[in-house]
Amino acid sequence: MIQKLINNIKKTNAPIVVGLDPMMNYIPEHIQKKAFAEFGETLEGAAEAIWQYNKEIVDHVYDLIPAVKPQIAMYEQFGVPGVLAFKKTVDYCKSRDLVVIGDVKRGDIGSTSAAYAVGHLGQVQVGSKKYTAFDEDFATVNPYLGSDGIKPFLDVCKEEKKGIFILVKTSNPSSGEFQDQLVNGKPLYEMVGEKVAEWGDQCMGDQYSYVGAVVGATYPEMGKVLRKVMPKSYILVPGYGAQGGKGADLVHFFNEDGLGAIVNSSRGIIAAYKQEKYAKFGAEHFAEASRAAVEDMVQDISHALENR
Amino acid sequence: MIQKLINNIKKTNAPIVVGLDPMMNYIPEHIQKKAFAEFGETLEGAAEAIWQYNKEIVDHVYDLIPAVKPQIAMYEQFGVPGVLAFKKTVDYCKSRDLVVIGDVKRGDIGSTSAAYAVGHLGQVQVGSKKYTAFDEDFATVNPYLGSDGIKPFLDVCKEEKKGIFILVKTSNPSSGEFQDQLVNGKPLYEMVGEKVAEWGDQCMGDQYSYVGAVVGATYPEMGKVLRKVMPKSYILVPGYGAQGGKGADLVHFFNEDGLGAIVNSSRGIIAAYKQEKYAKFGAEHFAEASRAAVEDMVQDISHALENR
Repeated sequence: MIQKLINNIKKTNAPIVVGLDPMMNYIPEHIQKKAFAEFGETLEGAAEAIWQYNKEIVDHVYDLIPAVKPQIAMYEQFGVPGVLAFKKTVDYCKSRDLVVIGDVKRGDIGSTSAAYAVGHLGQVQVGSKKYTAFDEDFATVNPYLGSDGIKPFLDVCKEEKKGIFILVKTSNPSSGEFQDQLVNGKPLYEMVGEKVAEWGDQCMGDQYSYVGAVVGATYPEMGKVLRKVMPKSYILVPGYGAQGGKGADLVHFFNEDGLGAIVNSSRGIIAAYKQEKYAKFGAEHFAEASRAAVEDMVQDISHALENR
Repeated sequence: MIQKLINNIKKTNAPIVVGLDPMMNYIPEHIQKKAFAEFGETLEGAAEAIWQYNKEIVDHVYDLIPAVKPQIAMYEQFGVPGVLAFKKTVDYCKSRDLVVIGDVKRGDIGSTSAAYAVGHLGQVQVGSKKYTAFDEDFATVNPYLGSDGIKPFLDVCKEEKKGIFILVKTSNPSSGEFQDQLVNGKPLYEMVGEKVAEWGDQCMGDQYSYVGAVVGATYPEMGKVLRKVMPKSYILVPGYGAQGGKGADLVHFFNEDGLGAIVNSSRGIIAAYKQEKYAKFGAEHFAEASRAAVEDMVQDISHALENR
């Protein structure tokens, strides 16, 4: 799947991923109204609005991008109907040939971690049969519990040729509280990065590993160091746009081959119509605004990479 | 909710929690057969088997225990039908007056963390209405992302009088890989413990905080230190029984008032009928074996506490 991600990136010439994190206040009123008319102001109604919103965005941007990253929390908050909308979104994006990164940030130990790995990336046994449950291509994983939490994911990745992105240095302001603490003179995130490289060596694709890392765009200097610590790991870079990251900050997340990083934008793309820059599209044409925002983001990053 | 947990513990005289982590190979064949006969060997069939298994165990132990801890991974692996079985289990346990600790180990930042908090502990807004999604009483939370990940949970806890247990020192063998690393001469888990105490001060019940911690029974010496670092936090202690923890190891997790800790056992209770000690019950009477195992566990811990 890492090879498919790389192929998709080369095909689109766009090392980006669109975060499908549908907050209700992003969803234009006409979509909400229609969904509520059909299902009422219920969890089912909210889930329908999310699904229709996602579908229209995906239909407008799928040919420009290699991958999407649905954030499961935004679905899970609407209970079982929300989780069903997550599943429909994953399936639909895959039918559009997009690589799907499930932003689930799961992490547990032993058989529990194995259950998450199986549920999100693998196949679960039921009697004599096997089923996929959510079937994303990649999942994000939290490393706090150590190797016991990661290894079950590695096993499933090897079997299914899928991948994970492990949280190393997150994009939020307080990420340093624990992640930046010095351990033998080295920040904890670097130590986690070294483990990512080690775990990744066990699951190699052609050039890059199935095991990637999450490093926030908001910390470009740390990205520069981590790029060297994990040379064969793809870096998933959140924090571009709304969280403050700019194209010029991103160049050091990439390797010399122009590969090795994929930059996420969520709100900046899916709620583009709410920005002054794209207001001309109006709420009715929100998905066209998203397309324009994707084009601008690709140009910003390409420009930065050409000028590095 | 922390007060309800304490009241339930006092009423039952049992500082324990039963982990509802239904692996398929724990579920007796007669239950699986019945579920598959009705729904086929499908995700729905697996979910039905889990639900019937849980229900029978809960019916046999609810009067002896204060709380249950369903592990969502074991449900999530069966996709949307599995998540529905999780929800049914939560609702059923609450109808039996049990406190429900959702072992979800969620953790993200900002609005995403808020979505998890709302989905698991709070109420989600849909148009002009509000709904609960999963509605556990407590949730487990991963601290790796720092305060940005925790604060949205604190907000919901204050509003809803619910609680969280933050992972501090987990029970698994490799938990030390990152958690034990020394930061200024102090292990990281202790630093996380200090933050738990700080976060907990903002959300106090009568004696104890809404903010608790997870510390594994497998690390009794660290439990002793952490007990003092977080005097007002309840400690959820996994790792008893199957993972190797014994009653005598647990005494230092409790405060002098006999409160402050709640010990989890999953496999040791729900799959008790598979142990030689309880084999006499047979698979047909698996839930009676669970009841006997609960009684033995309560006695083991009471005995240890009396003799400390």
